[in-house]
Amino acid sequence: MTGITSKDSEKRLVLVSGRAHPELAQDVAEHLGVDLLPTTAYDFANGEIYVRFGESVRGADAFVLQSHCSPINQWIMEQLLMVDALKRASAKTITVVAPFYGYARQDKKHRGREPISARLMADIFRTAGADRLMSVDLHAAQTQGFFDGPVDHLWAQPILVEYVRTRVDTSNVTVVSPDAGRIRVAEQWAAKLGGGPLAFVHKTRDVRSPNKAVANRVVGDVEGRSCVIVDDLIDTAGTIAGAVRVVLEAGAKDVIVAATHGVLSDPAIDRLQSCGAREVIITDTLPIAEERRFPLLTVLSIAPLLARAIREVFDDGSVTSLFDGNA
Amino acid sequence: MTGITSKDSEKRLVLVSGRAHPELAQDVAEHLGVDLLPTTAYDFANGEIYVRFGESVRGADAFVLQSHCSPINQWIMEQLLMVDALKRASAKTITVVAPFYGYARQDKKHRGREPISARLMADIFRTAGADRLMSVDLHAAQTQGFFDGPVDHLWAQPILVEYVRTRVDTSNVTVVSPDAGRIRVAEQWAAKLGGGPLAFVHKTRDVRSPNKAVANRVVGDVEGRSCVIVDDLIDTAGTIAGAVRVVLEAGAKDVIVAATHGVLSDPAIDRLQSCGAREVIITDTLPIAEERRFPLLTVLSIAPLLARAIREVFDDGSVTSLFDGNA
Amino acid sequence: MTGITSKDSEKRLVLVSGRAHPELAQDVAEHLGVDLLPTTAYDFANGEIYVRFGESVRGADAFVLQSHCSPINQWIMEQLLMVDALKRASAKTITVVAPFYGYARQDKKHRGREPISARLMADIFRTAGADRLMSVDLHAAQTQGFFDGPVDHLWAQPILVEYVRTRVDTSNVTVVSPDAGRIRVAEQWAAKLGGGPLAFVHKTRDVRSPNKAVANRVVGDVEGRSCVIVDDLIDTAGTIAGAVRVVLEAGAKDVIVAATHGVLSDPAIDRLQSCGAREVIITDTLPIAEERRFPLLTVLSIAPLLARAIREVFDDGSVTSLFDGNA
Amino acid sequence: MTGITSKDSEKRLVLVSGRAHPELAQDVAEHLGVDLLPTTAYDFANGEIYVRFGESVRGADAFVLQSHCSPINQWIMEQLLMVDALKRASAKTITVVAPFYGYARQDKKHRGREPISARLMADIFRTAGADRLMSVDLHAAQTQGFFDGPVDHLWAQPILVEYVRTRVDTSNVTVVSPDAGRIRVAEQWAAKLGGGPLAFVHKTRDVRSPNKAVANRVVGDVEGRSCVIVDDLIDTAGTIAGAVRVVLEAGAKDVIVAATHGVLSDPAIDRLQSCGAREVIITDTLPIAEERRFPLLTVLSIAPLLARAIREVFDDGSVTSLFDGNA
Amino acid sequence: MTGITSKDSEKRLVLVSGRAHPELAQDVAEHLGVDLLPTTAYDFANGEIYVRFGESVRGADAFVLQSHCSPINQWIMEQLLMVDALKRASAKTITVVAPFYGYARQDKKHRGREPISARLMADIFRTAGADRLMSVDLHAAQTQGFFDGPVDHLWAQPILVEYVRTRVDTSNVTVVSPDAGRIRVAEQWAAKLGGGPLAFVHKTRDVRSPNKAVANRVVGDVEGRSCVIVDDLIDTAGTIAGAVRVVLEAGAKDVIVAATHGVLSDPAIDRLQSCGAREVIITDTLPIAEERRFPLLTVLSIAPLLARAIREVFDDGSVTSLFDGNA
Amino acid sequence: MTGITSKDSEKRLVLVSGRAHPELAQDVAEHLGVDLLPTTAYDFANGEIYVRFGESVRGADAFVLQSHCSPINQWIMEQLLMVDALKRASAKTITVVAPFYGYARQDKKHRGREPISARLMADIFRTAGADRLMSVDLHAAQTQGFFDGPVDHLWAQPILVEYVRTRVDTSNVTVVSPDAGRIRVAEQWAAKLGGGPLAFVHKTRDVRSPNKAVANRVVGDVEGRSCVIVDDLIDTAGTIAGAVRVVLEAGAKDVIVAATHGVLSDPAIDRLQSCGAREVIITDTLPIAEERRFPLLTVLSIAPLLARAIREVFDDGSVTSLFDGNA
Repeated sequence: MTGITSKDSEKRLVLVSGRAHPELAQDVAEHLGVDLLPTTAYDFANGEIYVRFGESVRGADAFVLQSHCSPINQWIMEQLLMVDALKRASAKTITVVAPFYGYARQDKKHRGREPISARLMADIFRTAGADRLMSVDLHAAQTQGFFDGPVDHLWAQPILVEYVRTRVDTSNVTVVSPDAGRIRVAEQWAAKLGGGPLAFVHKTRDVRSPNKAVANRVVGDVEGRSCVIVDDLIDTAGTIAGAVRVVLEAGAKDVIVAATHGVLSDPAIDRLQSCGAREVIITDTLPIAEERRFPLLTVLSIAPLLARAIREVFDDGSVTSLFDGNA
Repeated sequence: MTGITSKDSEKRLVLVSGRAHPELAQDVAEHLGVDLLPTTAYDFANGEIYVRFGESVRGADAFVLQSHCSPINQWIMEQLLMVDALKRASAKTITVVAPFYGYARQDKKHRGREPISARLMADIFRTAGADRLMSVDLHAAQTQGFFDGPVDHLWAQPILVEYVRTRVDTSNVTVVSPDAGRIRVAEQWAAKLGGGPLAFVHKTRDVRSPNKAVANRVVGDVEGRSCVIVDDLIDTAGTIAGAVRVVLEAGAKDVIVAATHGVLSDPAIDRLQSCGAREVIITDTLPIAEERRFPLLTVLSIAPLLARAIREVFDDGSVTSLFDGNA
Repeated sequence: MTGITSKDSEKRLVLVSGRAHPELAQDVAEHLGVDLLPTTAYDFANGEIYVRFGESVRGADAFVLQSHCSPINQWIMEQLLMVDALKRASAKTITVVAPFYGYARQDKKHRGREPISARLMADIFRTAGADRLMSVDLHAAQTQGFFDGPVDHLWAQPILVEYVRTRVDTSNVTVVSPDAGRIRVAEQWAAKLGGGPLAFVHKTRDVRSPNKAVANRVVGDVEGRSCVIVDDLIDTAGTIAGAVRVVLEAGAKDVIVAATHGVLSDPAIDRLQSCGAREVIITDTLPIAEERRFPLLTVLSIAPLLARAIREVFDDGSVTSLFDGNA
Repeated sequence: MTGITSKDSEKRLVLVSGRAHPELAQDVAEHLGVDLLPTTAYDFANGEIYVRFGESVRGADAFVLQSHCSPINQWIMEQLLMVDALKRASAKTITVVAPFYGYARQDKKHRGREPISARLMADIFRTAGADRLMSVDLHAAQTQGFFDGPVDHLWAQPILVEYVRTRVDTSNVTVVSPDAGRIRVAEQWAAKLGGGPLAFVHKTRDVRSPNKAVANRVVGDVEGRSCVIVDDLIDTAGTIAGAVRVVLEAGAKDVIVAATHGVLSDPAIDRLQSCGAREVIITDTLPIAEERRFPLLTVLSIAPLLARAIREVFDDGSVTSLFDGNA
Repeated sequence: MTGITSKDSEKRLVLVSGRAHPELAQDVAEHLGVDLLPTTAYDFANGEIYVRFGESVRGADAFVLQSHCSPINQWIMEQLLMVDALKRASAKTITVVAPFYGYARQDKKHRGREPISARLMADIFRTAGADRLMSVDLHAAQTQGFFDGPVDHLWAQPILVEYVRTRVDTSNVTVVSPDAGRIRVAEQWAAKLGGGPLAFVHKTRDVRSPNKAVANRVVGDVEGRSCVIVDDLIDTAGTIAGAVRVVLEAGAKDVIVAATHGVLSDPAIDRLQSCGAREVIITDTLPIAEERRFPLLTVLSIAPLLARAIREVFDDGSVTSLFDGNA
Repeated sequence: MTGITSKDSEKRLVLVSGRAHPELAQDVAEHLGVDLLPTTAYDFANGEIYVRFGESVRGADAFVLQSHCSPINQWIMEQLLMVDALKRASAKTITVVAPFYGYARQDKKHRGREPISARLMADIFRTAGADRLMSVDLHAAQTQGFFDGPVDHLWAQPILVEYVRTRVDTSNVTVVSPDAGRIRVAEQWAAKLGGGPLAFVHKTRDVRSPNKAVANRVVGDVEGRSCVIVDDLIDTAGTIAGAVRVVLEAGAKDVIVAATHGVLSDPAIDRLQSCGAREVIITDTLPIAEERRFPLLTVLSIAPLLARAIREVFDDGSVTSLFDGNA
């Protein structure tokens, strides 16, 4: 038969990092036992981004890690440009790793004449050349369906639960959802923490005090109990801090806050420090500058989870196995 | 300038119906003041479907109404074939009208190695030639984002609420979600019915009766109150009937069930008749055979809503205006 | 160079079966020497299909076998969902194996305002994620061109001819096409059986008996000869049984019917048993329930052909070699 | 409401002609009552084609007429470039009018490792920007399904039949297919000409003269009858001329040849003149230079048919109505 | 015929503005005689952008004006979200108007493993839903070909030339390109200004002063002449200011700088003020804050050009006519 | 785990040649140490092209070499058909190797209502199934961005420069651009040849001789120097021969012409022989028939460059390394 044949079809994994969260990329690289791909990335005077890779990526399985923190549009654009450059440099496969996936909360039209921004993000990453997407705790699991290809939806709950177990008496815990829309997640937490009761905070017109137009009310059993308020992310912490207060007012013994993503936009730090919570637990899917950390804040590392998932994808293994069959 | 010019660029609306729910199509046609497009549709001996339209549709704005009732795969395929035939016959635009959109509950991977069936449906309708999609009360609003084009997401709640208001004393109503995942919808109902309290049914291991592995528990205030259990659909009615019972056991004065879609798979009818509910209210997005109707069942007509939305789309009006700015 | 490299890029073949024709899938698996992929597939109460694979398929070359028998729309939808699940679970390649490919006869617009259903099927399988298509004896070879990717068009004629040779005296055979549109196939049969004469049945107004509006007439030499009536499929057997009768009336010694696909919709069994044919020969591309088999029916196994073709595709071999250079 | 509104949304039809068959384009323009769009088209020194339109086509419904005669690849490329230019100049819709559609005979893989050229042509016209396709008597009707959009498949048979009726005694006519693959078409002719008998020419090893390896044999009744040999096209006329001879040898009274497309590659003219046919009838879907015409050749005009179909498409009328419900 | 027909198919133009350059949008609106579409656009706390339109856009021809100034990635993302929202709100056509189109200079791979950013931008606007693109003086005209649809490439030169004519004695003018790559543009300027001589600045190793590694040298005739240095944009003004100096050193009488786009990244203002140019002329394709304007700077309005082009597109007129047949 | 695994996932390179430039394909094959894939390609009587490969290409990395010489449309179509056949025969990757890429000069709309032919070519090759594109010295580097996939843009300058160095005294060389649009390339040549001066030929109205409407003028220092006129291609040689003359008239010592692509359309040969150039140097990206070669013409081989690039692509190496980091 005509043609050249060659046996050495080695697979090669390369890990690329944008400029948004280099510490996390470095941690993931160490867990994988690789060096990050040498990469040049800077802004031109007018703000246009320039990127270039310092080594060949031809034939490689490339993973591009960028967390969508502020300035979020810049980092999304940088990741798109990196995907485009990888495609044109003939990477074999390109996986977008976005530990925090921007615009995920804009996943439906709340009112007419809005964009569905989370779908748009999925589509433009696809257009740029992404073959698959990896993220942690998407705001709604349906967002997986926005991307036209495989999505590895990782789940930080086991990491958070494992730590929370060491901080509370699980026989006296109530899991609390800060609003009516996230009780399903609270239910999963409750099951993992031993099956205790559930509660949620309900924003309502108080029919007994008609003058006070809106009030938060706890629905469920929190009196005398350790409460764990759980959410997928903490942005300005308005809802969370309000929930802590109302739960304490309702007689809770103490309150812990646990969430995957620490967006922590102003004035989140102030609110969290003053709301009365005993501890605030997040992961480092987003960078938390040293000077913004405060004593009650605990930051758990997400790098081992990402590294294992990347390794599974590269090895054609089963990411599902990492997550209790729930990924 | 060379060329023929013509002024009479009239727009033409045609309404096409599959065989799944001809009564609804007829009702919509009457509200629109049109005749249904003459259509031939039958099965060949081996089950393949044949369709053909009896009149030209060239240049028309076509709306293809099919509700995804049982046998669901057959009716979805028929609608796909009708869309293909409209495309090849040069319809100007094609809108898929699926009052109940099949597979909408399979909108994420609950576990690895599953399909995301709701996205697949959206993609194959797009491939067949659909330009836009119209549906009522999708299981999750994110499903809108699965379709690569405009989606008119209609909302039956106003129709249901308007009727329920005539059936209960709104000063003594509690809105109840049958499980932890739908409380946001219950919250919207509560706001519309006057701001009364909320409750939900929580499936849990009962820590006080360790022998009884799982129990349903009502979280929230239902004693002595009229309860309205709300959901997007009633399929086998297991969850709903269980919720009715546990709410009555918790001391509710009486219970009404309200849902948009009456899927009513066996043994839904038996369960609903025997569960103790005072009334069960649904719309006719799905056909309910005369012999399956029972005295406590109220079926409200969805046709006026669909007809208005179709008319708005045809007139380049604003569907948003129909739905309190929430569509 | 940065990155992880790994040598063990083993290829892996997995064979997936839908619920339409499990016996054939099992036969093919045995010829390949593999187990079928453990798969869960069932219908929800409202008829929606659920599928899930029990093992990782990441990186595998997956072949999804489903024959499009009755209820045909359900089995097509199930195969689409399986393809979607394989895509999202990161199978490397996905081949749709449809021994009988549904809707293949609707491959053109016979009249205006019809769909081209065979093209629609090809497009929706592509949309779901299929990379290639394998089928046996498509109604028209042009259907290959409907799929935007490689198509393995297998050819059952050698299997049928080999068997027929053992049943007739090839020096006294006439090959007969049951209608005017399939004579090319009959011509190929005649060449394979030794170059004997050809005939076809022509539906016509009989100009000599003007009162009798339509009659079937044999054109060609059948008197005193063993006739083999060949077709790609037998559906309701109306045309075939009519052809057997008119050939016998024209003085044929005896008649054998040979076709690839036994669709056998009612009343095919009755017609075939009573038409006077000496033997009816088909393959098992479609399931034939034990109770529907009758003494004159011979069912040849298609599994070896499918297994060889799957193996060739997996090995990057040449499927063409299987079919006299005609695939 | 904000915005400019304007009432004068006139539609405009423009007819564009490539350089392949300007006479036909001119005829069609006259039947439509329009001037051809002023167009510049020439070859650069190295053979690259340059095209430019002399007037705005913004918002127009453009029809690009090019017949795929020799040099066929050049004329196909020119038509592609014209479609691209129309797209970039903002034509509203673009219809490719290819009275003879090149590569239509290569509509399947006869053997492995061949292209499916007819599908490729459909895809590249789509890529260039074509919205719809119009052609006459495609080699196989399935080719319609290759184009991802509406196809107007016109049918020249009524024009040919109408003329042939004036040339033969329909009570003594046999319609003959020149080979086994086109008998279905012959059957349609026979029905239109009064239901007379059918015949076809069968290429076979003559079992009675084993030394003579291949012979053409007429199957069917031709003796003493006027025969009409029908086909979709005449290329080199080898098959057709052979069929005329064998039909005359079998005792036919006389023979007329009728086909839609006169490709007439060398040595077709010689063969047709010397084969013994009484008359050869084609249409002018392809240009026939004056000096290549011979006394027995009749060329019927296809322009009225094309003009009516273009007009119907422009008017959103029903092309189907032109063709006995068979388009 | 069944169906509703309606005559009032009015066309409607809506003009949408992002937040990047509202003054220009307002000017364009005034030239068009329309109000801008009421639009809500703001940043969430974490930087995600929210947009919503205050009026229906269903069926409208929408033009979305955003100039890609700093922070450039934010404004590009905002424009993408606006396009997505228009698509989902059923605008009939969507034109992206980017007077300055970001990333246009990154239009090729200068070295391996870079993105082609200008193509990526074109592709993601297409993905979001843009039907056409309008821009002024793209860095390279080839960028038009990156967008898969019509592009209106406007040309500011006539505006600049008309003004420059009033500022120089055209009988003593030399047009100077600031580097070797833009002489073609200078050549067009020279032709428009009366056919005077051309020059360019050449960066070279000076072979006569081997110690001085790189020097700028003027090639062409500038001594005693009024020089007009022309370019498409002024970013940091390093090249331009250097060119002014070297031209003056070579004996030019005086120097005017003219460019379409005033990017004016730091330290452009300082450089331009101190380089010795008599006047710097730009247009307002990009916003120039009042405090950054300096006495020698002349800013010409681009709004009339944009308004005319938008009007032509809306009216199905011929944009080509605006630009000497060069658009 | 179920499934067949196989270790021998060997890669295989196949080199396919069209009929345009078989000598170059043979040379490349020899440099690669492979045989060309056995291929059948011929024209049917009416000019349609037929292609078929004589060996399996399943799973292979296929490179299809065709240079776009005259008859250019035929050879482009042949290459498209070969790509289609490779796709349908399951080649793993398909690279279009077009040493001279046709229509590259039509890379923008010079005026309205023209095609962007170079983009169209890129799109139809993509549609046919091409995964990547390899070419030498595209007319504008931006053309890379027209193809939606990796492009290997090879650069013949090193080959030409290396040879020219042996033919001139580099201390006395001026590099001359034949027109204003290609000076950037001349600048690169000058840098490679030792940093000497630059010049270009400027087409202008001669203001001192108003009667003579247009004149070519050399801008820059050529008197007494060896001049090298450089361009990407020589088509009819009108511009080049004119440039040679005007440079000699301006006092140049002698002139060498160097270009990558020898299109050499009539009357290029005559012009080049008579223009006064000392030597004309091109590569064999296009075939030059023996009888068209003339004594002053030097043809350098491009095969080693192509072979190295193909090898790098096949080996997942870095094509960038071949070209000073400039590919």
